[in-house]
Amino acid sequence: MRPYNTEIISVGTELLLGHITNTDARDISEMLSKIGINVKYHTVVGDNPERLKACVQAAKERADIIITTGGLGPTCDDLTKVILADAFGIPLIQNEEEVRSLYDYIRNSKDVTPNNFSQTMLPEGCTVFHNLWGTAPGCAFESDGKTVIMMPGPPVECVPMFRTYAIPYLQALSDEEIVSHSVRIFGIGESVVDDMFADEMNAMTNPTMAPYAKECDCLLQITAKAHSEQEAEEMIKPVIAHVRERLGDYVYGMDVDSVEEAVFPMLKEKGLRFATAESCTGGEIAKRFTDLPGASSVFLGGTVVYTNEAKVRLLGLDPMMIEEKSAVSEEVARALAENVRKLTGADIGIGVTGVAGPDTDGIHEVGTVFVAMAVEGKTYLRSLQMGSRRTRSFVRRMSGNHAYDMMRRYLTGIEVEQFR
Amino acid sequence: MRPYNTEIISVGTELLLGHITNTDARDISEMLSKIGINVKYHTVVGDNPERLKACVQAAKERADIIITTGGLGPTCDDLTKVILADAFGIPLIQNEEEVRSLYDYIRNSKDVTPNNFSQTMLPEGCTVFHNLWGTAPGCAFESDGKTVIMMPGPPVECVPMFRTYAIPYLQALSDEEIVSHSVRIFGIGESVVDDMFADEMNAMTNPTMAPYAKECDCLLQITAKAHSEQEAEEMIKPVIAHVRERLGDYVYGMDVDSVEEAVFPMLKEKGLRFATAESCTGGEIAKRFTDLPGASSVFLGGTVVYTNEAKVRLLGLDPMMIEEKSAVSEEVARALAENVRKLTGADIGIGVTGVAGPDTDGIHEVGTVFVAMAVEGKTYLRSLQMGSRRTRSFVRRMSGNHAYDMMRRYLTGIEVEQFR
Repeated sequence: MRPYNTEIISVGTELLLGHITNTDARDISEMLSKIGINVKYHTVVGDNPERLKACVQAAKERADIIITTGGLGPTCDDLTKVILADAFGIPLIQNEEEVRSLYDYIRNSKDVTPNNFSQTMLPEGCTVFHNLWGTAPGCAFESDGKTVIMMPGPPVECVPMFRTYAIPYLQALSDEEIVSHSVRIFGIGESVVDDMFADEMNAMTNPTMAPYAKECDCLLQITAKAHSEQEAEEMIKPVIAHVRERLGDYVYGMDVDSVEEAVFPMLKEKGLRFATAESCTGGEIAKRFTDLPGASSVFLGGTVVYTNEAKVRLLGLDPMMIEEKSAVSEEVARALAENVRKLTGADIGIGVTGVAGPDTDGIHEVGTVFVAMAVEGKTYLRSLQMGSRRTRSFVRRMSGNHAYDMMRRYLTGIEVEQFR
Repeated sequence: MRPYNTEIISVGTELLLGHITNTDARDISEMLSKIGINVKYHTVVGDNPERLKACVQAAKERADIIITTGGLGPTCDDLTKVILADAFGIPLIQNEEEVRSLYDYIRNSKDVTPNNFSQTMLPEGCTVFHNLWGTAPGCAFESDGKTVIMMPGPPVECVPMFRTYAIPYLQALSDEEIVSHSVRIFGIGESVVDDMFADEMNAMTNPTMAPYAKECDCLLQITAKAHSEQEAEEMIKPVIAHVRERLGDYVYGMDVDSVEEAVFPMLKEKGLRFATAESCTGGEIAKRFTDLPGASSVFLGGTVVYTNEAKVRLLGLDPMMIEEKSAVSEEVARALAENVRKLTGADIGIGVTGVAGPDTDGIHEVGTVFVAMAVEGKTYLRSLQMGSRRTRSFVRRMSGNHAYDMMRRYLTGIEVEQFR
């Protein structure tokens, strides 16, 4: 197998001005790492032919696979395609299928300009990636022992196109199948996970295993290469079993992106619904869950009771109790969870109150948060101290992870409050 | 003035694996563009001495200012510092002040390892950027006609350190002052703004003006260079006045990051408070506002009434009316806004219902959203069709922008419903 060192060149002056973030490079890198292809460089260059040309030359010298994002649309005169085709001495020719498809599109849209037709000029002999998410097609070709892949820049086009066409294209270049799974972990940090498995990981060659830190959780990525997908899956199975056994309840899911994504099917399966009462998280817990399409089947609704007044008016908390115990207290968290459950008729009520910072409430340190979960006959509580140097966004996100982790533990019948 | 072509080299294998996004490069680029420094390249390279060395050599040839992020901490053996110092032939020497500061830190923390002391080795004669947000110091030096700046990788350290130390350091290199302001626009697209000002912008050299698209709004950036800050400000003033006159009510603020950030001081000044009732946005409107520290002074609270049941139970909507008009309707949006206002005692009630997708409700297209704003004696409404190809995240974010834009228009006494 070729070493497949890869460079991603992202073309766009807006990236260099800091007006947009290079999420394409991140998303492509993540997809490639899962099929065992190593990304060695990301390069960002403006809409400038000379500088792009120089970057392409450098990439030809140091990479086996060159992936470009951006510079394919009508407004940038298809800069990337022209430069790349030229660098490999391949002419651009009109692709009749793409022309027909563009005519079809025009009939249904007023957004097409004559410039759009330059998009149908593609490197001779290339594999065309028809764009189901926009208009500019992507493409791939092999030349001078290199693989070149060109993708449109907008993430809503680039990411699904890469997943749909480029990943299978790259997999077909190899006679090996690569399978990768991630074990998602919440409740212990990446450094602890690293310590636990360091010796094993160093001794492993195929499958391999590596820990990664996310913002408020972490994961172990396990990857195997074999002649068939099935064989690779078989190689991974015992490793996953071993990891799950050692990590126990800290594992919240496999191949998911967040704790809420892991909780969603569990709630659905049991036919349970939850509701939220958020103070310091200010709607973030609800927002995160409703990022998932179809959320309404298990998420009944919630309240954002950011002020004491709202806690009283929307959820009927006792103002004297808030006064006496303080808004940031175990008692208020419990009352929030219990009252929102009762009020909405949900099976599970979540209540969160705390100090997200940067200002304190004059009583507690930044990072003090109480998360409560009320179910039939019982209310669970976690009392958290995240550390006063934590940012507002960290405290809010971590609070949400705890809420979802408590639900997960409750739904799988394991200890809810003692998570460490 | 030197041309100041800049390259940002970000060091970190986690970036190449797609586990984290290169927000440092974006944030630094944005800060630099505001002081008139052009970023020409972003490069990402792994924690690998040979490849980093080659990237630094390339940057020396094509850039005047080299900025690195990452690779300064104890776990990466201070890779970046060693390679950069070597590339410029400068020895690393121990910085006594940083050693003392580290000893102070150790007394208060258990997280320090002997490796931390390698952080106190810095290029001889450099300007030290003491790290108030973490432990690894940053630094800057001039050599071979180049400016080199090294920053720690974690965004919570890198961004404030760059703003606090690196920006003044770079400004001091020039005898010119650069001032930049952004005019934030909502309700018309970047391409329309571009068309309106294209001829003027092409004719301008100092000040300059450029339009940029954000996810759901856009901006005009106006930048002037002069011998003093005051002089630059004076040059910009008439341009801003002209732009504001032509764009009128579409301008929602100056030098702010979002519509809600513009609305916040308006509400504060008038002593008004609002509350939210969110269906399709699922808490995102509340979440965005509570991202702003101190939000509780004007945001009373809200409800996430994602299901019809929640609309009835939490806000007392009439289930027959929902049945008859459908949950996604003008009438439901109005009732949400009015009821949440009444229930919480807020001055302004916001109600949002719509189809965020990817699935429809069987009646309306994806992107159909009704946004209502109830105030004393009147309820305003916007009926939106964003287009069925829009993503869930776009529809949700855009809906929030409309809600905040309606508040802004109401608070400044201009037409609320007709925004186009």
